[in-house]
Amino acid sequence: MTKSISILGSTGSIGVQTLDVARNLGIRVAGIAANTSIDKLESQAREFLPEVVAVGNEEMAKVLAERLNDLDVEVIGGIEGFKRVASLESVDTVVTSIVGIAGLIPTMEAIKNKKNIALANKETLVTAGEIVMSEALKAGIEILPVDSEHSAIFQSLMGNNIKDVSRIILTASGGPFRGKSSKELENVTLAEALKHPNWNMGSKITIDSATLMNKGLEVIEAKWLFGLDLDKIKVIVHPQSIIHSMVEYVDGSVIAQLGSPDMRLPIQFALTYPERKHNNFSKLDLLKCGSLTFEEPDMKSFPCLRLAFEALRIGSTMPAVMNAANEEAVGLFLKEKIKFVDIPKAIEKVMSKHVVINNPTIEDILEVDLWARQIINKMYI
Amino acid sequence: MTKSISILGSTGSIGVQTLDVARNLGIRVAGIAANTSIDKLESQAREFLPEVVAVGNEEMAKVLAERLNDLDVEVIGGIEGFKRVASLESVDTVVTSIVGIAGLIPTMEAIKNKKNIALANKETLVTAGEIVMSEALKAGIEILPVDSEHSAIFQSLMGNNIKDVSRIILTASGGPFRGKSSKELENVTLAEALKHPNWNMGSKITIDSATLMNKGLEVIEAKWLFGLDLDKIKVIVHPQSIIHSMVEYVDGSVIAQLGSPDMRLPIQFALTYPERKHNNFSKLDLLKCGSLTFEEPDMKSFPCLRLAFEALRIGSTMPAVMNAANEEAVGLFLKEKIKFVDIPKAIEKVMSKHVVINNPTIEDILEVDLWARQIINKMYI
Repeated sequence: MTKSISILGSTGSIGVQTLDVARNLGIRVAGIAANTSIDKLESQAREFLPEVVAVGNEEMAKVLAERLNDLDVEVIGGIEGFKRVASLESVDTVVTSIVGIAGLIPTMEAIKNKKNIALANKETLVTAGEIVMSEALKAGIEILPVDSEHSAIFQSLMGNNIKDVSRIILTASGGPFRGKSSKELENVTLAEALKHPNWNMGSKITIDSATLMNKGLEVIEAKWLFGLDLDKIKVIVHPQSIIHSMVEYVDGSVIAQLGSPDMRLPIQFALTYPERKHNNFSKLDLLKCGSLTFEEPDMKSFPCLRLAFEALRIGSTMPAVMNAANEEAVGLFLKEKIKFVDIPKAIEKVMSKHVVINNPTIEDILEVDLWARQIINKMYI
Repeated sequence: MTKSISILGSTGSIGVQTLDVARNLGIRVAGIAANTSIDKLESQAREFLPEVVAVGNEEMAKVLAERLNDLDVEVIGGIEGFKRVASLESVDTVVTSIVGIAGLIPTMEAIKNKKNIALANKETLVTAGEIVMSEALKAGIEILPVDSEHSAIFQSLMGNNIKDVSRIILTASGGPFRGKSSKELENVTLAEALKHPNWNMGSKITIDSATLMNKGLEVIEAKWLFGLDLDKIKVIVHPQSIIHSMVEYVDGSVIAQLGSPDMRLPIQFALTYPERKHNNFSKLDLLKCGSLTFEEPDMKSFPCLRLAFEALRIGSTMPAVMNAANEEAVGLFLKEKIKFVDIPKAIEKVMSKHVVINNPTIEDILEVDLWARQIINKMYI
């Protein structure tokens, strides 16, 4: 079990829930980091008394340093602060819950410093899965998934050998627009897209759930996390979100993990693994959850899932391009500058323009990421 | 993985399926045993060329020995034959698929001879769980469950620590009479009781499924197999029999095993554990299996389940008495000498007459077994 953590992105949804878990389990929080939310950072620092607080925005870092000058805490601004939080001597596990490709560099720093990673940042593996997994292997550290689906697969693999897996089955709620035709999706509103049926999450990931891109990103993440070929990864729509994902073995046996839709459960498991600990989270009651159903995902109405499979098939820098294009497109949709159905169209356009770079370095990945963002913004602004 | 097995009860439903698995995997079958089915035993002996064939009925053993005198195989009659099959030098694992308390003595013999047990005989643990588990621990052997429910729990425990279990959840199909009231059960026929909705099994176990006694026996078996307190064992009705059972952990995570209702799957797993092997069994397709539902078991209409919990709560010789009474009552129902609803009534009567023997020996258990059978037969014949 982890004794001391730092959290990259401590003020976001996962970060705050991680602090809740740490509070319950008495885990030391030695470092916290966020981009701009210094009010939240201040109160977190006062409660958890970390060694280091990092603030992405340098100006805000100065403000926070002033405010916290009564505490024995170092406040560091910019990427250096994130790197410092990711590499603190006293820390066993770094929780990477920062959103977007901004998570990649500090995660690499944490791995280099032999920290286990509790991975909540999808982009790390989506954009640079091959590099990250090979560095993790070299460093001899564990990457423990925090995403509920990947945690479910990780738990369903315990005690088994990955070579005995015939496929993994990622479940998807289908989002708020499940069952709608492409035509019906033409005029859905931002407010409708932000209403997720089962999970309460940040707005970027909520839109990704509505487009099914979230599942696409999870497919790519799963490929790297579990070292599986694309044809061994299946997505199935399970609207009730009770079965969080499954593993089918070569003998036909299927192991599944079920639970209440509470992110603190996978967060806690990533921190207590291989142990499990009591908590006061609401427990799953199968007698009250009605019937569990399963459907094929509709890749026609939700082309983002198809695009993710395509990006993964092409490989090298294409997933990073897809991810960046998606982030920008979702940003434009959140500002109501494009329609819901424009999201996949924009991504597909950017992908079609990209010439992949083979065996990319981290620098190549950051470069194509920037390139994709520029292209998409040129298209709409 | 097991290399060589012997099968106690090779001509029954589980025995025949075990031979199918052995055939697929190329596992050597060194010993086979059955009570009376010498035609089947003969053809099995001719295909698998075991070292020893045991026949419970001594006269029939002589007939079979004559028939097989062209083969290099020893045919042994009576309990000595069963013991021999259970203790063959070349055998790693003994599959105990013999039905009833007759499985107990040869299973003990196999354990004494340090054979792993692939346990399909419920009565072994139901009647003598404490003794059997303590002998298995002393001998340093593994008891691998073949029952689909216990195999599901065993698989859902892999990689985890039993101390982290908050409870196990045994699923029950509910049998052919699920949803019927006590009144409606008054006049159900033998033919109706023999129609199991999901599984194709022997007649004794099919009736036990209809009364829910089968689940009761599984509760007792699970208690010993996994070393759990009674309050950590829960039964839930899941009519589709897709989830074969589940384990709920202290953190709220639930791990479940799912699969097609094909007994060869748990049989194979007991023989390949900790590995898994390809096979040609039909695979589970969640997209085709409709919705999965869950209900509380109805202990009022199906008092056998309540009786099993009671017998386990009382402990010592009471489960053996309950089991014997059930075997006889089911026998009488199969001969249409008593009604379906008389089964639990008969068992409860016998249980109420029994004075438990504390710290029973195997001999005590066999004695109360006989006593219970005499009582019930006096009641109805």
